[in-house]
Amino acid sequence: MTVRKVIFDTDPGVDDAMALMFLARRPELELIGVSTVLGNAGIEQVTRNALFLRDRIGFDAPVAQGSGVTLAGISGNEALHVHGRNGLGDIAVPEGAAGPLDERRGHRMIIDLVRAHPHEVTIIAVGRLTNLARALEKDPEIARLVREVVVMGGAFGTHGHTGNVSPVAEANLFGDPDAADIVFTAPWPVTIVGLDVSQEVVMDEGFLRCLGESGGEDGRFLRDVSRFYQEFHRRSRGLDGIFAHDSLAVAFAVRPELFTLRRGPVRVVSNGLAVGQSIQKPEGAPFPPGGAWDAHPAQSVATGIDTSGFLRLYAETFIR
Amino acid sequence: MTVRKVIFDTDPGVDDAMALMFLARRPELELIGVSTVLGNAGIEQVTRNALFLRDRIGFDAPVAQGSGVTLAGISGNEALHVHGRNGLGDIAVPEGAAGPLDERRGHRMIIDLVRAHPHEVTIIAVGRLTNLARALEKDPEIARLVREVVVMGGAFGTHGHTGNVSPVAEANLFGDPDAADIVFTAPWPVTIVGLDVSQEVVMDEGFLRCLGESGGEDGRFLRDVSRFYQEFHRRSRGLDGIFAHDSLAVAFAVRPELFTLRRGPVRVVSNGLAVGQSIQKPEGAPFPPGGAWDAHPAQSVATGIDTSGFLRLYAETFIR
Ligand SMILES: [Ca+2]
Ligand SMILES: [Ca+2]
Repeated sequence: MTVRKVIFDTDPGVDDAMALMFLARRPELELIGVSTVLGNAGIEQVTRNALFLRDRIGFDAPVAQGSGVTLAGISGNEALHVHGRNGLGDIAVPEGAAGPLDERRGHRMIIDLVRAHPHEVTIIAVGRLTNLARALEKDPEIARLVREVVVMGGAFGTHGHTGNVSPVAEANLFGDPDAADIVFTAPWPVTIVGLDVSQEVVMDEGFLRCLGESGGEDGRFLRDVSRFYQEFHRRSRGLDGIFAHDSLAVAFAVRPELFTLRRGPVRVVSNGLAVGQSIQKPEGAPFPPGGAWDAHPAQSVATGIDTSGFLRLYAETFIR
Repeated sequence: MTVRKVIFDTDPGVDDAMALMFLARRPELELIGVSTVLGNAGIEQVTRNALFLRDRIGFDAPVAQGSGVTLAGISGNEALHVHGRNGLGDIAVPEGAAGPLDERRGHRMIIDLVRAHPHEVTIIAVGRLTNLARALEKDPEIARLVREVVVMGGAFGTHGHTGNVSPVAEANLFGDPDAADIVFTAPWPVTIVGLDVSQEVVMDEGFLRCLGESGGEDGRFLRDVSRFYQEFHRRSRGLDGIFAHDSLAVAFAVRPELFTLRRGPVRVVSNGLAVGQSIQKPEGAPFPPGGAWDAHPAQSVATGIDTSGFLRLYAETFIR
């Protein structure tokens, strides 16, 4: 088995925590760094959460604090009503007990790790794309040195799903649309796993209970951390369970064959009514030439998912 | 049978011509005026075409020339590669033989007719929405006096369809997005029949041949006028037939039960990547409050169509 080196760029976040534990337990993936970015909570909080998760999960990779503002310089817009006041469903996150923070900025650590392992690194980005855009700005060459970028974000309108912060926008892209446009139009291979597939996958009450009961210590943690998030899904959508969101990006790195992909350049709307919307021009689509998509590389957008295959993969990671 | 008074606002246009003949032959509808707008060809050409169609189809309603520029003052952007150089598939349109043009501007005729028949008029608009927006600007009261507005336009991304001029934009709305936003947010009941349903309905070669052979003089005209348009569909999409587009808006006025509707405010993107995109916030959608949709009236968007029911209705209008 070839093992992939992975940088996890994240704003933990309940589904981030569930994805990070999933990633750390997969033998196919080797976690070599975690960078944080504002989003589900402010940058101090998500960084504290990432350090806590490193202790709790038990991995060695460095954790570096990334951007606390968007490319446009905006902070705020946290999703505390979704992920709890502390971003981790209000489970107890002890102060000060965690190991040291890497002294580099998040985007700098990304650059260093990519240059240390040319053509070997997969970046799994499950928050706003600010750190990745900053890394590209500082060192555009890395686009040629990264093996693959997998992003959880965006809403492409398949399966009748809307966005989750507007009819067309998903939160990670809405949170920093300029960064997302930079990342998607860079000359590196990006696969975008957005709401089109992540809202197709519900970890329901039975699944979460089973994880909690049969998944050992990890399973109990996953069950505990997801309670607040589950309550949010129940209140806002009447859903008896949670969307797996960020874990799908990890699953793509482990088992790409679970996904159906559509190829074509992707742009992100930077302002106005549709701000944060991700738009792909599918390859071969017959639009007038000279459009905003035409000069950019084709990327892959996930439009289909083997739901039960994913749930089996996630469960078997913890229940043996 | 109650007969509905109808104003037809149009940019003929092959599918406009097919829709206008359909409208004129339906006993449920009484055509009381035709206003023209630039789009499939320039304003002089589409007006000449409308006058020709009045002769050819044989109706008495006035034809008034509407706007030759968008609200933003732009002309051009015609679709001559789709509808032929003369906008009517390059069939012979004799010069000067047609009856008189109404002397009012298109939007003025709309205002007059609505005020002459309060609460009775249905406006079927199958081109850019410039005339309707100008009518609302000059006389906002008409919004309360119109029975219903049915628009062919927009792309809402259901059924996996994209737009037809960009991944997200349909030509009528793209052609004057400011006008469309005004029309959709006005306090009158609008039903929007866009690509989501119009691209579900193909009048194929067999259907068109049957019309031509068994539909008498009307059928022969429909067959002839659609040949260039059919060739465009073949070239650009490999489709052995044509989309019925504008006729669907007429069908909605005759048999609304053929359609599935989704309710919610609709806005149109005025610039940027997504310019011309129509976005509905479905009723009950859980987005943060204070969004761009929230202060506007719910409208109806067609998301489903009984395809064979529509084709039967269209065919039986000409073949008895
Ligand atoms: Ca996240
Ligand atoms: Ca038209």
